[in-house]
Parts: sequence; structure tokens; C-alpha cells
Amino acid sequence: MHNPQLNKHGELQHLITLDGLPKAILTRILDTAASFVGVSDREVKKVPLMRGKSVFNLFFENSTRTRTTFEIASKRLSADVINLNISASSASKGESLLDTIDNLAAMHADMFVVRHAQSGAPYLIAKHLIDTNQQHVHVINAGDGRHAHPTQGLLDMYTIRHYKKNFSNLTVAIVGDILHSRVARSDIHGLTTMGVPEVRAIGPRTLLPGGLEQMGVRVFTDMNEGLKDVDVIIMLRLQNERMTGALLPSAQEYFKSYGLTPERLALAKPDAIVMHPGPMNRGVEIDSAVADGAQAVILPQVTFGIAVRMAVMSMLAGA
Amino acid sequence: MHNPQLNKHGELQHLITLDGLPKAILTRILDTAASFVGVSDREVKKVPLMRGKSVFNLFFENSTRTRTTFEIASKRLSADVINLNISASSASKGESLLDTIDNLAAMHADMFVVRHAQSGAPYLIAKHLIDTNQQHVHVINAGDGRHAHPTQGLLDMYTIRHYKKNFSNLTVAIVGDILHSRVARSDIHGLTTMGVPEVRAIGPRTLLPGGLEQMGVRVFTDMNEGLKDVDVIIMLRLQNERMTGALLPSAQEYFKSYGLTPERLALAKPDAIVMHPGPMNRGVEIDSAVADGAQAVILPQVTFGIAVRMAVMSMLAGA
Amino acid sequence: MHNPQLNKHGELQHLITLDGLPKAILTRILDTAASFVGVSDREVKKVPLMRGKSVFNLFFENSTRTRTTFEIASKRLSADVINLNISASSASKGESLLDTIDNLAAMHADMFVVRHAQSGAPYLIAKHLIDTNQQHVHVINAGDGRHAHPTQGLLDMYTIRHYKKNFSNLTVAIVGDILHSRVARSDIHGLTTMGVPEVRAIGPRTLLPGGLEQMGVRVFTDMNEGLKDVDVIIMLRLQNERMTGALLPSAQEYFKSYGLTPERLALAKPDAIVMHPGPMNRGVEIDSAVADGAQAVILPQVTFGIAVRMAVMSMLAGA
Repeated sequence: MHNPQLNKHGELQHLITLDGLPKAILTRILDTAASFVGVSDREVKKVPLMRGKSVFNLFFENSTRTRTTFEIASKRLSADVINLNISASSASKGESLLDTIDNLAAMHADMFVVRHAQSGAPYLIAKHLIDTNQQHVHVINAGDGRHAHPTQGLLDMYTIRHYKKNFSNLTVAIVGDILHSRVARSDIHGLTTMGVPEVRAIGPRTLLPGGLEQMGVRVFTDMNEGLKDVDVIIMLRLQNERMTGALLPSAQEYFKSYGLTPERLALAKPDAIVMHPGPMNRGVEIDSAVADGAQAVILPQVTFGIAVRMAVMSMLAGA
Repeated sequence: MHNPQLNKHGELQHLITLDGLPKAILTRILDTAASFVGVSDREVKKVPLMRGKSVFNLFFENSTRTRTTFEIASKRLSADVINLNISASSASKGESLLDTIDNLAAMHADMFVVRHAQSGAPYLIAKHLIDTNQQHVHVINAGDGRHAHPTQGLLDMYTIRHYKKNFSNLTVAIVGDILHSRVARSDIHGLTTMGVPEVRAIGPRTLLPGGLEQMGVRVFTDMNEGLKDVDVIIMLRLQNERMTGALLPSAQEYFKSYGLTPERLALAKPDAIVMHPGPMNRGVEIDSAVADGAQAVILPQVTFGIAVRMAVMSMLAGA
Repeated sequence: MHNPQLNKHGELQHLITLDGLPKAILTRILDTAASFVGVSDREVKKVPLMRGKSVFNLFFENSTRTRTTFEIASKRLSADVINLNISASSASKGESLLDTIDNLAAMHADMFVVRHAQSGAPYLIAKHLIDTNQQHVHVINAGDGRHAHPTQGLLDMYTIRHYKKNFSNLTVAIVGDILHSRVARSDIHGLTTMGVPEVRAIGPRTLLPGGLEQMGVRVFTDMNEGLKDVDVIIMLRLQNERMTGALLPSAQEYFKSYGLTPERLALAKPDAIVMHPGPMNRGVEIDSAVADGAQAVILPQVTFGIAVRMAVMSMLAGA
């Protein structure tokens, strides 16, 4: 099978991962997003591009925040949105994932936005739709297990391009629990594809996966070294469930070694920007002085995220 | 009181049960549905027939799947939809069912889609609206206890008519847990009204209710006998909670006696169709080879279900 | 800081409490609501005043009924509505209230409808939006702790004005658990501002807060005395959790002393109206004969409530 994300005309058919997506496609998404940033600023925040289309938010794992961003993006494109918390429904009645998918496709769905705790679930769904010739339905991965979170990766690319203009001379550091982070994985693939010459991963050895060097990433366990002269810092959320596990001593201990403080931020370039996918743990991975400081672009990330999702959805709907 | 489902002009006012609905009304619903099948195929899947109408999905019993079909049907008719899970709300504050209904009616609701674990709840609501002269609100039964599931019955009639053209020379078998099935009850009333000459019920004696013969149904406990030369097979879902009860030995045992396998299907007419209301228990009531086979029309049922619900809603809204 | 509810032109910017709102503003809301009462009666119950605006229902405390009224009001104004049950989402991920707010504001929200168990939460949110210069987002308090429920207060004013024409010669009694009631507090502020000469509070001493006399309210512990010759009776809901506490002996005991029976109602003026914010406890604070009687205006309150919410929302959106 060729890249299941592209149709035979090379257009985006599904968005599952940034891994393997050509730079031209990423650039086209970012350019399309730029045209949508203005829509959310208007008096009437709506364009009719997806009028009469049916978007299903299939959240097998609960995430109000991510679901909300897709719901807003859909509504601003004039689509009809149906929210489904699948954990609470058919899954409990023993129906298989693919039966649920076939059922919803038979309702003439146009798009599935899929969040799932299992890595690979959105790919499985897209592959099934291709195999069963149900090409009218497009899949967007809204986060699957530790695998990928491509729209988060894309909004991070958008934010970096917005503030740094181009990717070709940047050093970008990703800090924290790289091991469990689908955001980190999507960011690494996006940054590499866009031509960022130096991507760094910073974290305790227990939270760094193997294979980073092979992906072209420089690994640091010492944060002060890792932040030296970087242009962009992407902080990752430390999941609560890790804090009391065997992988980490404690939240306070973590903050001491890997929390982003004003002092540490001073090691980066003076115009470095600070990003975070949210929700933040203030005082765990990031100091409030940094989160609310002049270099933080965390809220613009959210704003751009709506435009990026509108771009992906409208491109898929038009494919 | 005359038939509470029809207004004084003989038009559909509420849809509570197929029992007692004239053939002319059923036929009109199916014909109207036929005109909506095309809408879901269009680029813009929307007609403005219910623009500015307020539809309330009142689900006293959770059912994401059924709620979704009504939500899509409403949105494709351009209605505004409000989803209410009543179990989690006022009911817990001790408010009576009819106070809740009066309240929502006072918000100028146009339609209540009611799902309730208690048989008779939608009838009670419709009767109350008639008694209190609140005729602007229409009730659709989306499944009540063991009593009725009329839109499922109607979509089954639609599917049968679609594949078999007319009802007048068919043998239809309904297989499984007839005793607890509101689908079976609505199907039997629909098939009888539409003039199907032979309706069969097949199942273990413990899952067959009394009185089937009086409804004109032929009863079989042996599946091989019951399937002989039938045109249509309607498989019922075996509810998990029955499988470990006193009524049934085990899921495996059930499959051995009443699961629809390719071998058993071969006993029916060569062009027999296989239906199922979903969600399916593969390997319990139906073999995957049959569920995914050429004679299964289970996914078309879902597609037709949207059109049938659009037909019922638009007819009620116009009454 | 000046009154945070008004902008520098003296227009309504946020609706947090009726306390301190000028009579001219209250009157303008009621007049605007009057123009919306007709909209819900029309064939197409929709006006395009908030087309393309994004309204977020932020319910930190569950209330299906109140959420529903705001959802309908939004949809009839053609706004896009996003429902968020925050208790179940980011709050559980440890994100702070104001980070959640900033995040949603960054999605270009236009309005937050906030329900919160903590008194003061909507004020805190409005103040934060002012302090951080995010004036494009408007806050409506949909009930906070024991503090205020201003849209309920306004719909009560609307109902009284509708039936009694003007406020200047009325005696209004509020009966029940005044201590824990945000409705009572908003009603007292509204009635006082609108110029009602006599407001009475009736209830057991344990459910009457201190300071009522200073607010200009006459206090009665004997219901028969308190109801004498009143024009309007506002019954409050007795919360279940109070009924078995130290504050009250039992529901039956409460009904005997403070339940509104036909006999007690006869003590009021013959044309007195009976109001209740719902949901009612029939047989606890109100007899069914009164709730369903000719003097009850409880369902018209619900109808007017939609119009009042449409008025507040459209005024805020235009400010």
C-alpha cells in the first residue's frame, strides 16, 4: 500500500501522522491555516466551506480540550458536528471498533476525528475505510496512545514559522517526558521535515526513548546544557500518573532538574520563544513567571490551533 | 380517546408504536423516506424543512447509537437539537417526569425524541401533551422498555421493500430473544400491517413470549425448520445480561442452536436478505461470514434509518 | 475598579449579579426580552443576531436544566454553542481555572456562561478578562454558590411585570430556604431596584440569613402572617440535602409549616400570582393543587426565561 494518508492524486486523504508527509503538504496546510487565522477575528466567525458535511468526534479517550478545538473548527467551517464518547457507548455493548466505524460511515459521515488510548487505532480505521472502498470518509488523528498528535505538531510548526519566519537556521529543544509523548514524536517529524537543522531532546534518562539519535535528534539529560542558545523551547506536560511512579522521584524533584525557570530560560537565545501544548502544571514543568512571561507563546498556539484544524479539515473535505 | 398518534385530520401527530397505525400512514412514511435517501448523498447534505425548530433528544436510558441517528436526521433537516441525558439531571433532583416535560414544552420545544427503560413512557408523555392541549410538541418513541421501537420497525420495512419490492408474497423470520425485544414487536406489527403473509418467530422457548400465534406469527424453536425457504431473516441482538442468566446456558451454547451460520443461511431462499438492528455480537447470534457476506443488508439498514427518521420528523413537524 | 459589569460607555459588559445594576439597565433588558418573546412563537424560531459568535457553556457544577435554557437561547440567536462540563475535564488534569479561561478565550470565544458551586467564580473570571484586556469575551453568571443567579432574577422581574404591569405598588413574598438561595438574593436585589415597596422573606429561622432587614426586607417566620395580602409569592425549592440535616426536622414537617397550600394561598390577594424557579418538590414546598392551579405562573416563567436570556446575550454581544 502506498502512503495511506495521500490519495492517488497526492492530496491529503487522511491525517494520521506527520511521519512521511512531504514538506509540500505540510507547507500547504500551514499556508491554508494562515488564511483562516483572520476568520476567527471577524464579526461573523464562519465560512461555508463544509456546510452540510457531517463531522464525528470519536473520542475513545476523553479530552474535552482537544474535542473543543475540533468542534469549534468544524462549526466555523459550517459543518454539522456529532460528539461521541465511545467508551461510554457501543464499546461497552461489545461491538467491535470496525463495526462502529462501518455503522457511522453508513450514516454518510464525511469525517472522523479520532482520539484513542491505543497507538495505531486511527491508522487501523483509515486502512479499513480504504480496504472497504469507503473513501468518502476522512480520518483525522486527534491523538493516539504514545504514537502521534499530528494537528498539535502542525500548530507547533505554524507557531514557530509565525515567530521565526523560517525553519532553516533554528535550534529547537523539546523538554520533558519524551518517552510517553505523542506531541514530541509529531513535533520531531514535523521539525525534521521542515528542515530544522538541530532538534534537541532534554529529559531524565528514564523518560527518553531509544532511537532518538537515529531520528537526527541530539539528546541531553542536563537541562542547562540542552537549552544553550536555542531559538525555541517546547515544554511537555508531565502527566500526573508518572509523578508517583518508578520513573520519577517526585514533582518537586522534577521541577528542580527540568522545570523551566527564568534563570534557565536566560540560557537560551534572548529572543527564544516558549511553547507548551497544555494543560500546564505550573510549578512542575514550568514556572509561572515563564508561563506568563513575554517569551511565552502558549496562548497564540491555541489560537493558531483552531486555524490549523480548519485548514486540515477543509483540505480533507475538498480532497 | 381516539388513536393518540393521529390528529383529527388523520395525520401523524406522535409516533409511539406501529401497532394500530394504518397501512396508508406507514406507506406514506416509506415514500417520504425514499425522497430523503438522496439528501445524504449530496455534496450539501441538508434541507431547510425544520429550520428554526427545536428538537429535544430526551434519553432517560443511554443509547449513543440511536441518539446519533436522530441527531443527524435533525441536523440534516436544519433543526436545532438539544441532547438531554435525563437520568443524570432533574430526575435525580426528584422532579416528576411530567414536570420535566411541561418545562421543556414551555421552552417552545417542537419535538421530543424519547428513549426510556420503562415501557409506556413515551405514550404517557404524548397523552399528557394532548390532555394539556400542548399540541405544538410532537413525540417520537426512540425505544421504550420491551414495548416498541417504531423507527427501527419502519427502517426494517423500508429495507425489505427496497430489496424485495413488495410485501405481499414474503416469508420473514425473526430470530432470537423475541421476549425482551421491542424491535421484534415493532417489526411484527409493521410486517402484519404491510400484508406480509407469513411472519415466523424463531428462538428458545424461554425467549419466546406468549401470544405470538394470536398475532398471526408462526413459532419455531428449531432454527433449521424455521429458516426453510424464507425471504428475509431479521436477527436480534442477544443482550449480554441474558447470556449468564437463568434463561440461557451460555453464549457458545446459544450460537450452536441459534447463531446464523452460512450453513443455516443456505436453508433460506437463495436471494434471502439478512438484517440486524445492531450492535452485533459476532459469534453469538451471527457468524462473521454471514454478517460480512453478500446477503447481509445490515449497513444499508443504517443508511435507510437516517432517511426514515428524517421522514417521520418532517411529517410530524408539518402536521 | 468601577462596576465591572458595565463598560466605559455604561453598557452591560458582563452579567454577574443584579446587585448594583441600575434600574435603567434592568428595564432595558426586560424591554429587549419583550421583543424576543414573539420569536419563540414563530414558525422559524431564529434571529441572526449572534451568527458566527461562539458561546461556551462552562458548567463547573452540573445543571442540565439551566444549561438547556442557555443553549436554546444561543441557538435561537444563531450562535454556535459549545457545552463544557469542566468538572469532568481539565480541572481533573490539575489545570487552574484561569488557565482554562485564557485557553478558551484564545480560541476566540465571545461569551462564557458560567455555573459554579463556588460563590464568586464568575466575578473572578470577569475580573481576570478585564485585567488581561480580553474584553471581547463576555461573562454571564448562570448561578454561583449561594451568591447570585441574575438571569433567574431577571426572568422573575419579567414575569412580575407581565402580570402586574408595574412594580411600584406591590407586596412580594419570597418563601423558603432564603439562606442557601442565590435565586432569593437576585430577586431581592432586582425587586428593590425596580422599586417594589415591600419585599417579605418567609421561612424558618434556621433558613433565614442575617442582614435581611438592612436590605429593606420584612422578615416573617409565620407563613400565614407573611402571606397576608401579598401580590406575588415566590416559592423556593427546598434542596434535598437540607431536609435531613440539622436545619430542618423533616420534609413533612416543613410542608406543614411552609408548604403553599390552597388555604394559605387564600390569605394573599385574590389575584396574587405564584412563582417557583423549579424544579419543584411537590408536597414539600408546594401543594400540587397550587402548582397546577389558576394562579400559578410557573411555566410562563420558563417561557419568559428563554426571552430574557436571549436579551442578555444579544445585549452583551452588541456591547
